[in-house]
Parts: sequence; C-alpha cells; structure tokens
Amino acid sequence: MANTGTQGGAPALFTPESSRWRCREATRGGYETVDASADALHRPYTALAALLHCSPDELAIVSSATAAWQQVIYGLAWTWRPGDRVLTSVAEYGSNYIAMLQLARRTGVRIEVIPETTDGDIDIKVKVKLASGKPPVLVAITHVPTSSGGRVYDAAAVGAVCRQAGVLYMLDACQSVGQLPVDVQHIGCDFLSATGRKYLRAPRGSGFLFCRRDALNKFEPALLDNVGASWTGRDEYTMQPSAKRFESYEMSFAAKVGLGVAVGEMVEELGIDLVWERIQHLAHVVRRGLRELQGVTVQDHGRQLCGLVSFTVAGLTADQVQQALSAQHINVSVSRIGSTRIDYERRGLSEVVRASVHYYNTEAELQRFLTAVAGLAGALS
Amino acid sequence: MANTGTQGGAPALFTPESSRWRCREATRGGYETVDASADALHRPYTALAALLHCSPDELAIVSSATAAWQQVIYGLAWTWRPGDRVLTSVAEYGSNYIAMLQLARRTGVRIEVIPETTDGDIDIKVKVKLASGKPPVLVAITHVPTSSGGRVYDAAAVGAVCRQAGVLYMLDACQSVGQLPVDVQHIGCDFLSATGRKYLRAPRGSGFLFCRRDALNKFEPALLDNVGASWTGRDEYTMQPSAKRFESYEMSFAAKVGLGVAVGEMVEELGIDLVWERIQHLAHVVRRGLRELQGVTVQDHGRQLCGLVSFTVAGLTADQVQQALSAQHINVSVSRIGSTRIDYERRGLSEVVRASVHYYNTEAELQRFLTAVAGLAGALS
Repeated sequence: MANTGTQGGAPALFTPESSRWRCREATRGGYETVDASADALHRPYTALAALLHCSPDELAIVSSATAAWQQVIYGLAWTWRPGDRVLTSVAEYGSNYIAMLQLARRTGVRIEVIPETTDGDIDIKVKVKLASGKPPVLVAITHVPTSSGGRVYDAAAVGAVCRQAGVLYMLDACQSVGQLPVDVQHIGCDFLSATGRKYLRAPRGSGFLFCRRDALNKFEPALLDNVGASWTGRDEYTMQPSAKRFESYEMSFAAKVGLGVAVGEMVEELGIDLVWERIQHLAHVVRRGLRELQGVTVQDHGRQLCGLVSFTVAGLTADQVQQALSAQHINVSVSRIGSTRIDYERRGLSEVVRASVHYYNTEAELQRFLTAVAGLAGALS
Repeated sequence: MANTGTQGGAPALFTPESSRWRCREATRGGYETVDASADALHRPYTALAALLHCSPDELAIVSSATAAWQQVIYGLAWTWRPGDRVLTSVAEYGSNYIAMLQLARRTGVRIEVIPETTDGDIDIKVKVKLASGKPPVLVAITHVPTSSGGRVYDAAAVGAVCRQAGVLYMLDACQSVGQLPVDVQHIGCDFLSATGRKYLRAPRGSGFLFCRRDALNKFEPALLDNVGASWTGRDEYTMQPSAKRFESYEMSFAAKVGLGVAVGEMVEELGIDLVWERIQHLAHVVRRGLRELQGVTVQDHGRQLCGLVSFTVAGLTADQVQQALSAQHINVSVSRIGSTRIDYERRGLSEVVRASVHYYNTEAELQRFLTAVAGLAGALS
C-alpha cells in the first residue's frame, strides 16, 4: 500500500541525524566525529534496552540482523558434535536455513523441524518437552516468519520449555521488534536478533543482538575483531565482559546513530503497545477487504496474526500484481519459495504477494489499495 | 594535518549520491530504490575491477574490510587440521591476529610469524621458500601495516613464492588500495580485502573482497546467507558461481553506492599513478620536516615508505600530541600496542602518533602541521 513495505525499509524515518553524521565524517574526519559524539552512538543501547526489557550491556549493535544471528550460530557450531540436534521452525527464513545446512555439513549436527499446530502455532511440545534422550544443543526459530502467513509464533511458550530443559534458545525477531511488544524476560530467550530497517524504521546497515548475561560465556562469538576482544599478550586475547564482544569495529556509524534515533522515537514518543494495537486494526481491515474480493485469496494462517498480510490473485503471478500496484504508487513485495521452502512446499505455494501495514498508514490508503487489487482481480473475471 | 587522517575516513568524499539514496529509501521504499537503481549498485564492481586489474565477478562488496577478511579465513579454518601452519607478518594488524589466535584454539593450527629483513621488508624466503615439510595452509599478511612504520611490504615477492609453492595467499590491503597501484595479477594473491573508508574516501560501512577464480571452490565462505547461496532443495543449497557467494544481502546500500562513486572518481578522473606519486612527495616533505625537529623521532622504517607517517615527541604522550594538534584543527591519530603487539614489542614502542597524507593535502597544510609540532616539541626543550 502507499508507503508500505516495512520489509524493505520503505517507511524508514528520514533521520537527519544520520545524514549530518555522514557530513561530519566527510568534513571533520571519521575518528574525530566519533570522539565528539559519544552520546549519539550510545543511544541505541539505552533505547533498545528499554524496548526489549534488558540491560544495555546485553546488547551488541552490528551491521544487520543477519550478522547478529550469524555471530551466535556460527560461534556455537564450534561446540557441536556429530549427532547433536538443532531444532527450528517450519516457516524458518531461507537465509537461516541455508546457514544451518552449511553447519550440518561442517559439524554433523542434525536439523529437526518442529511441526505446527493445526491453528498455525509452533508445536514445541512434540519435539522438546517430550523428547527422550539428549536435549538439543539449540532451538532457533523465527518469531514472525517473513515470507508468509502473517503468523506470530508463541515465543514465550517455546521459551518456557527451553528454560525448563536447559536448552539454549535463539529468536529471530526481524519482523516483530518494532511491530509488537517484545520482552526478552517474558519470552525467556537467550539470544534475540533483529534489524533496524524493518518495523523500527532505522537505516539499512543497522541491526542488533541481545545475549542474556548467563549465556555469554557458554561459547565464543563466531568472529572476533579488536572491538570484541583485546590483544593482551603475544598469544592471548581477552574478550569484552559484555555483549559488546559480538560487535565489530567496522560498521556504518551513521546507521548506528539513526538506529538510536528511530528506536528512541518508538520508545519515548509512540509506545509499542499503541503501535501494535493500531497495526492489528489496520491489518484486520486489509484482510477483511481482501477476503471480500473474488479471485483473491488471503494466505494467512495462525492463532495470532500481525501486520504482514499475504495473498494471491487468481490468474496473475505475484510479480504481475506487484508491478501493477507499483504503477499506482503502491508498494508491496513478493515472497518466493526460496525464502521459506518447507512451509511453502507443505502448503502448495510457490509465491505470494505481501502487503505490510505500519502505524502511520491511513484507512484511506488501505481503501485505495483494496480498490486497486479489486481492479486487478476484476479485470480477469 | 588539516583534513588528514585517511585512517578514519576523515577525507571521505561527501558523495551526494549516497545521501540521495538514503532519502529515496525513506520516501519511496528500500526494495523500490534498489529496483530503480541497479546501475548505481553495480558501479563499485566495474570501478574496482579496473583499479585492481581483475574481473567484476571476482569481487564481493561487503560492509567492511574486516567482514571481507573474515569471510575467507574463518571459512578456510573449517578445512584446517591440528599442526597445520598459517604464516603472517611481524606487523600484522591486531584484529587479524586476534582472529588467528581464536582459530588456533579452535582448530589446532599454528601461527608462525615471518621475520623482517634488516631494511624493513618481509623476509618471505626464510619461512616459505626454504621450508621443509608440508607447505603452510595460508599466508596472510598486511600490505601496508596500519599501526606504524610507514612500510609497504613487497607483496609481489610474497606472491611469487606462494604461487611457486601452491600456497593460498591473502593480502590485507586496507591501507594500500587507493594510495598506491595495487594490481592483483602482479601481486599474485588469491584473496585481497580492503575498506572503502580509508584511502578510497568512500563511506564507512563499505568494504570488498577480491577472490581469484581459481581459489573460489577450494572452500566455502565462513558465513552464508540467501545472497551467497540459494535454498534449492529441502536439504540442499547452491552457492553463487562467482565471488558474490561471499556477500550478505544486508549492508548499507547507500554506502555501497558511495563506494562506486569514490572508486569511479579515483579510476576515471585522478588515476592511481598520479595519486601515488603525489602522496610519496608529500610524505617525504613531512618526514624530512619532522626529522629536523629536536625531540621528534620519526618511527618509520622500511625499504619502501608510503603516506602513513609515524612519530613520537619526547616528553609527550601520543594522546597529548593528538589533543594539542586537534585544538589547532589538525587531525592525527594514535596507534597503540594492542594494534600491532609483535612489531611494537620488538621495537620497544608502546604508542606512536600517526599523520597520513593524501593527494589533496597542500604543502601549506604540511608547513602548518610542522610548525605546530615544532611548537609542541619546542615548548618542552
């Protein structure tokens, strides 16, 4: 819909702070800009700590959600042995699944997929709670699958099971942080990764990792540089005592500053509860409207639905729908099977159109979107 | 010196293209900006290919030099066995050395340091050419050490030895690309990593990897996502046929666009030969001027010197020098032992002041810098 597509940073805040930072780097110098502006670089930690209910020293700011997620799983992998099990979700994101396949080859770890309940939630009982034998080395799931379904998995239910079993638990929260309340204490995850550029509306090139204090010393980050560790003796390095050990010195500081501004606005000015309430209302209006259109199928399925709405139009490819809407200045995106193979194969899908709403969308925009889709579907009937 | 400090991106070009990109992402959408501007995202490949004398498909654009370097070494590490040897240089960058120490712990690989010749070049003969027994699994050195010495190692001499012995060779070219001609065919390296934000004057948040076509299939990238590989079957992924397999989908695209603009200017408008000629002249003026000052010691040592000039002032810490010059709007930086422990321990140094010159510096700026340092040194005598 107009100015939608939070998945692509479409509605990023235009943070003048970020542009001013770049300009200062160019005119005054990179190191000099850092020295003069420590507060702006610290703001993402305090703002995210308030949003996620954790301590600032449990946070690492990195260049993307992918980098954050990889720092954990590729680090843990050095502790895995052949036959160890990693559990993941049906709707796991393709990028994560590729990484797990690579690590399965490298370490001999087995990937097991946790089934879904009939009403589209994750059925954690089957695989973990009732598992006999050695507990899995990791449960790694996605909170809100990016590719389809509009689902929000019950992350806290998974957390409760993992805590009870003493199993490490990583949550990919790319689509949930900034959209709905995400409280790491309530969820009970050990690790949480997310991006700045989606529902938080921060610049592309920013992401972060939450690592619970208890989990910090169970392994080493996948990759270390001289921010994560200090070279303290000829053959010796000392890691940061906090989650900063997962950071790299090199990232766009302008994006990091923009992340602080965007999250700060979310926490201090809007409030995540209000954001989530409005998103659910708008998404309901969209789904209800799409369901009334002949030839249009809403492809969402879940106990709890969110602001990502997926649908197909009979007789049109997803690309055709996307292009036709783009010509009317309405942004939607296309999700394909390579992004979520297991889920799509099971459901007989190869692609869907995805429309995402955020708090700033207006009901008038939603009507314009529904009219446009009706026009596309109607032209074929 | 005024507007110096290439190490910190001080003299980054202010690329309006990069800011416009960010603005378009905010107003039109992230995915939509990419679709409409494929040329701008392709430019860094063609411009870097021209600069480095390689093919565009031997290049991966990533978020930093560190990310590029890590994609190779942490990937290769999965093929190493206890007792395998990695050779590195005396003046290796701390961040790289920390990573090697971590991989030594994980894999049992041994790190061996190649000594220097008496005139400050790398003495490759001793360790590789004359080595008996199994060849090393990797030679990983830095072309121009960041921390001191002003040295340019003879990378091509190392390359010739590695080619002859069939040993993989990785060059960290962070400080050399954009400063002096770097021709990967002449050097004969398999991998080369560098940043955008130093002598190339591109935005922070950009870097790249050259991977020679022959070396591509000898290992897998350390980390894979759904740009590096496609999820082609339930338990199967297929990597990109080119060096793109080292990329991650997530990086600042604004920085990537800025990298293309900055390298394009270097290649098409300035010419690297002219840049290098001018840098050598300016650095000579600085060193000669500093050597004339009582209480000032130039800490450079090498067969071939470059635009990084390091020095100490008797009676003042490096931080004191840096702060005093900063008050006069002259940017220099401080290098400490943690950045290059082996080299500094050997030379009895704990820190130096580093002044870097680039082509756009004027002789008047150099005189102002020399006068300022003379004032600091003179005040103490």
